[in-house]
Amino acid sequence: MQFPAVTAPDAEAARAARARQDTLIKPPGSLGRLEELAAWVASCQGRCPPQPFDRTRVVVFAGDHGVAAAGVSAYPPAVTAQMVAGIEAGGAAINALAQVAGATVRVADLAVDAEPVAGALAAHRVRRGSGDIATGDALTEEQTLAALQAGRDIADEEVDRGADLLVIGDMGIGNTTAATVLIAAVVDAEPVAAVGRGTGIDDAGWIRKTAAIRDALFRAERVRTDPVGLLRTAGGADLAAMAGFCAQGALRRTPLLLDGVASTAAALVAERLAPGARRWWQAGHRSPEPAHRLAVTDLGLEPVLDLGLRLGEGTGAALAVPVLQAAVAALSSMATFTEAGVCGPVRRP
Amino acid sequence: MQFPAVTAPDAEAARAARARQDTLIKPPGSLGRLEELAAWVASCQGRCPPQPFDRTRVVVFAGDHGVAAAGVSAYPPAVTAQMVAGIEAGGAAINALAQVAGATVRVADLAVDAEPVAGALAAHRVRRGSGDIATGDALTEEQTLAALQAGRDIADEEVDRGADLLVIGDMGIGNTTAATVLIAAVVDAEPVAAVGRGTGIDDAGWIRKTAAIRDALFRAERVRTDPVGLLRTAGGADLAAMAGFCAQGALRRTPLLLDGVASTAAALVAERLAPGARRWWQAGHRSPEPAHRLAVTDLGLEPVLDLGLRLGEGTGAALAVPVLQAAVAALSSMATFTEAGVCGPVRRP
Repeated sequence: MQFPAVTAPDAEAARAARARQDTLIKPPGSLGRLEELAAWVASCQGRCPPQPFDRTRVVVFAGDHGVAAAGVSAYPPAVTAQMVAGIEAGGAAINALAQVAGATVRVADLAVDAEPVAGALAAHRVRRGSGDIATGDALTEEQTLAALQAGRDIADEEVDRGADLLVIGDMGIGNTTAATVLIAAVVDAEPVAAVGRGTGIDDAGWIRKTAAIRDALFRAERVRTDPVGLLRTAGGADLAAMAGFCAQGALRRTPLLLDGVASTAAALVAERLAPGARRWWQAGHRSPEPAHRLAVTDLGLEPVLDLGLRLGEGTGAALAVPVLQAAVAALSSMATFTEAGVCGPVRRP
Repeated sequence: MQFPAVTAPDAEAARAARARQDTLIKPPGSLGRLEELAAWVASCQGRCPPQPFDRTRVVVFAGDHGVAAAGVSAYPPAVTAQMVAGIEAGGAAINALAQVAGATVRVADLAVDAEPVAGALAAHRVRRGSGDIATGDALTEEQTLAALQAGRDIADEEVDRGADLLVIGDMGIGNTTAATVLIAAVVDAEPVAAVGRGTGIDDAGWIRKTAAIRDALFRAERVRTDPVGLLRTAGGADLAAMAGFCAQGALRRTPLLLDGVASTAAALVAERLAPGARRWWQAGHRSPEPAHRLAVTDLGLEPVLDLGLRLGEGTGAALAVPVLQAAVAALSSMATFTEAGVCGPVRRP
């Protein structure tokens, strides 16, 4: 799959934002990370000062993973479909956190291992559960391309409907196993340096998970530098769609907040598909998963928050939305020294 | 000044909150810090689930410090009064961040070195500028007690008007110098281990600031364990009022978010005046000031955010408000496993 070249965010708007910061009634640099985030939003919007976000949209990509049958998760695979229903019903953590962030939530079933529900939820469904990556490919070549395209289509749908900030989330028992394989393959890490506890697996489960990751990583060795081949061999329909979504969001010049290890693994692959896409992303939070750290480091991103969340669904990214809103509000609504008649720093000889 | 005994937040409500967390459709503990914050809010409100905050109120305590004349700040003392006007006009950083947090802002002039403005702003004013702590006391005994009482009265006014979450902020050129002295005196630290750059002073200014802190700390040596004496000797009317505000907020059983080094220094002294008050507080963010770390460590608090802010005004605390709101929303609005029909973890033999 060919992606067009990614255009960088507007460097001139970022420069204007930094220059404007120093005219506002506060010591230079004293808003810390907010100043950098405001410049990033200005560069994504191509204007300074940036405008408040009008439509923040969380998209949760759902899919099952055959490898879950090997006991790599603390939860049974049936939980994926149950949690998709839970999010649709508004009772999941992401619903609560999105509401606080002023965002709305969409779930997309890419490969849940259940009968598809009628309507928009399953409109982009690729298959029923992705294959067990420890023993075979997750997807066929056609399914991989279909899933990538599904993610691109979802990004297009959301941007066309007015989304000006995208928040990516995931739901899928076993998805941290596949995500860890993708990250370890891309950054060339050993399984033990990348494997984490996911939703909270015990020691015996950790051993099973590490074994599955080792087997999948061995299978993925020959496609390490082939992003589509990697998603096919060791990803899944949800992860491939997330990669397409992240890349297309950048192509549509729309800022996007990454969440935990699943979405960040997909983003890492997306950066290989569409180099430069990462400039349109921020890491919403730091996940305790070791592979997450490897991925954000490779992407050159510094997580905004570090609150120990290990839930997925986009929750960590949703928590970062008010921080971005605050960064934009400060840059766009604060008075300047001149307007307010406030003295600048003392100049000493 | 005698403070009544502080009642602890409701431990039973905190226990109920933790128990409820484990019934919600997410892996146990997966909301990380949010789970602990939600239990804290539940314990402050004495009910589980906790209710969303109805009236979040930022109070900015303003005052000048004679020590600023020694060149301990990057800014001239006139900036205090100018920034008070800037906040009143709605153009400061705290106005922008409070709006994102759904909070309103009040400024209280305790000792600004300017003619008092008519109205509520100066209703609790104690004097015009606090004394130079490097060479003499900041306040008289009567002024110290008046400032403590002013802070208590302001807390009472806000709680009586319905505030259910207090956010404390500060505005005062030179106040990080006095705050650093208070902290170093209470925790018995050397000046060089506590002094920081404040709003951004240069190397020569840092040397002047350290010298002033050393002189004030020498003067404060004999009142290290006397909180009122310490505020009189090395504090200021704004810092004493903040201490009264923090203590009274706890006595009124109202949760409070601390901000940077000024408010946290006042809180450190307030904990000596009203032991146990700290259980009603969270540290909204981590300030880069070394003394801030000493104070939060002594108080047993772990900052919610770490975004490199060094502005004061309550900005770091205001940024933490949406995190608290999210914690409350998750605990109060998420579905339980039973309600949603979601399976719990796999039990393996």
